[in-house]
Amino acid sequence: MVSTNHPRYESLNRRDLLVEGYKSGIVSIHGLIAQGRGEAFDYLLGEKTSDTARHATKVACAYLLTAKHPVISVNGNTAALVPKEIAELSYLTQIPVEINLFHRSEDRIARIAEHLHAYGTENILTGVDAVTLPKVASQRAAVDRRGIFQADTVFVPLEDGDRAGALVRSGKTVISVDLNPLSRTAQASTVTIVDEVTRAMKNINTSLRRFAEKDCFDELEDLKSSFDNRKNLDASCRTLLRHLQSVVS
Amino acid sequence: MVSTNHPRYESLNRRDLLVEGYKSGIVSIHGLIAQGRGEAFDYLLGEKTSDTARHATKVACAYLLTAKHPVISVNGNTAALVPKEIAELSYLTQIPVEINLFHRSEDRIARIAEHLHAYGTENILTGVDAVTLPKVASQRAAVDRRGIFQADTVFVPLEDGDRAGALVRSGKTVISVDLNPLSRTAQASTVTIVDEVTRAMKNINTSLRRFAEKDCFDELEDLKSSFDNRKNLDASCRTLLRHLQSVVS
Repeated sequence: MVSTNHPRYESLNRRDLLVEGYKSGIVSIHGLIAQGRGEAFDYLLGEKTSDTARHATKVACAYLLTAKHPVISVNGNTAALVPKEIAELSYLTQIPVEINLFHRSEDRIARIAEHLHAYGTENILTGVDAVTLPKVASQRAAVDRRGIFQADTVFVPLEDGDRAGALVRSGKTVISVDLNPLSRTAQASTVTIVDEVTRAMKNINTSLRRFAEKDCFDELEDLKSSFDNRKNLDASCRTLLRHLQSVVS
Repeated sequence: MVSTNHPRYESLNRRDLLVEGYKSGIVSIHGLIAQGRGEAFDYLLGEKTSDTARHATKVACAYLLTAKHPVISVNGNTAALVPKEIAELSYLTQIPVEINLFHRSEDRIARIAEHLHAYGTENILTGVDAVTLPKVASQRAAVDRRGIFQADTVFVPLEDGDRAGALVRSGKTVISVDLNPLSRTAQASTVTIVDEVTRAMKNINTSLRRFAEKDCFDELEDLKSSFDNRKNLDASCRTLLRHLQSVVS
């Protein structure tokens, strides 16, 4: 148990969730290494949500609320870290959750489905009716016919492969959360939220609840049309640089 | 298997070594997350050895060659990543290797000892004759009486706890390899090599072989007396910043 007074309590607590997830067969061994990479980038970003990320979060909500066939693509790390937030997002928006793994195993998919369901997600697709996406080399190419395959908008809280570019090239809107603004996923997505996934998911759900309170069609369209992911990523890179400069000097 | 043509072959190959090490009981689950953190910092450093790291490597050799009772402190990740290089270092310098773990388990120590021995390390201490270091909270406080306890110089290729400061305060010279120049280990050590451990170990062994070819007593003393770890770490931070600036713009 990590004391809540520890300066890095949140980060250490997330590490424990991943380790538990690995032990219960939800997280893959490569998911643990990926978590470490995320920790390092979050540390360099000061472990807080930037204004840039906050803006990208609102744009992501605009896309999710105006999509015809949106889907949420969940992997092991996402299920371990934010099961409650995924359930809330799916409930608020009525968007289905597809379990889609880079290191695919039917056993792990079943365990993740059980875990998500225990936390309240109702609408779960497990790729039983699977088709193969063209130009995706990993096992993530196997997608559900009713989910990612027919989706116009795919929200990927944590992408663990090279798939974002292929999804965008096939005409889909891709929204991702990625702490490395220089990664291929970050660079290829339509909207990239450069933030830690727990903070990002909480902010998304808060924004969605606010949008639900009012007639906001024009605001959502404005958010989408005025957004430039390249500029937003550049701003995240500058945030990273500024924070590094401040701790170095 | 990762193709040798892959731009990040070395990094992916190391990841595979860690995963294999975990499966064979050498690497701890936390070691996998630590590897991910290291990968992120190495990525930001351009995955190459800086001149700053190269200089710190030579100074580390000077300390190792002039110490009265040096010891090499090895954990699971070090054993998985550089077993051959540890054997070579121990052979070249006749310095014993102590297996010392943050998450201590007798089973894991036995497996690491067997692994190191299979790669050629002869002089291995496993903490059978253990005493407890004062002011170290983790299980790494349990050290071998013939090793770290009596050592004047401790070389820690990968430190995974908070111990470097305590070792320095107890009067020991601490040499560490750490990709994060801002970490507590990096900041507390006498000499910090900010480099990936495989590259650092190869460079150390190359330098040691060169020093062995000539009478270099004065050179070694000069290397030690003119070295300022604080300045060297600042230079590593600037390297990190410069590389980040170059990839961002």
